[in-house]
Amino acid sequence: MLTVKNAVAAIEFYRAAFGAAEEERATAPTGHVVSQMAIDGLRFFLVDENPEAFNLSPRSLGGTSVRLNLIVEDPDATTAAALRAGASEIFPVSDQPYGFRQGRVADPDGHHWLIGKPLAR
Amino acid sequence: MLTVKNAVAAIEFYRAAFGAAEEERATAPTGHVVSQMAIDGLRFFLVDENPEAFNLSPRSLGGTSVRLNLIVEDPDATTAAALRAGASEIFPVSDQPYGFRQGRVADPDGHHWLIGKPLAR
Repeated sequence: MLTVKNAVAAIEFYRAAFGAAEEERATAPTGHVVSQMAIDGLRFFLVDENPEAFNLSPRSLGGTSVRLNLIVEDPDATTAAALRAGASEIFPVSDQPYGFRQGRVADPDGHHWLIGKPLAR
Repeated sequence: MLTVKNAVAAIEFYRAAFGAAEEERATAPTGHVVSQMAIDGLRFFLVDENPEAFNLSPRSLGGTSVRLNLIVEDPDATTAAALRAGASEIFPVSDQPYGFRQGRVADPDGHHWLIGKPLAR
């Protein structure tokens, strides 16, 4: 569950960058939105920031402690789509010594995504 | 991938709290450890803090932007095990209006885990 400044506003990024689809949306009695998203069937949630419940976005915290590790067919194309959709590059896609072609981006809310695939052996 | 102060030291908590098993361990040329863990086949990684690579633990950031949502057979028992292993309670396990029996803990490194199961209908 990824805390973002505004869940509804964030959906468009995940759609454009990763082909994510919104599966369900719920609004808590407090007005905070929880959006159930999926990338190729892999489920995650976008949740409105709510400091009283300790739910802070990376922008508010000044960083993140979690990296999401996305395995895709074409890391270069997915990374390019993410950058076009508003992500920023942390490191570029390249062949890594640990056996992946992989890069890393920060999405507009500051969540970090590794985007890669295993290198052919 | 969860950034922690010390991956090797953190493993014991995840083992005791959630029955996690270490599947593999790698050490980067920088000396930073990446431990591949699994809970009932669900894979995650513990990674040593490395501020130069933007990998900060929740303790260093003063919070976290991500909640891990763990669905278990017995949320009360799993939560009790987590608290015994060193987690702290964020909210206690109870029947929630959104259809889950669920509670929330912070692990010793400050990562937040929702622990619950769907309520019988």
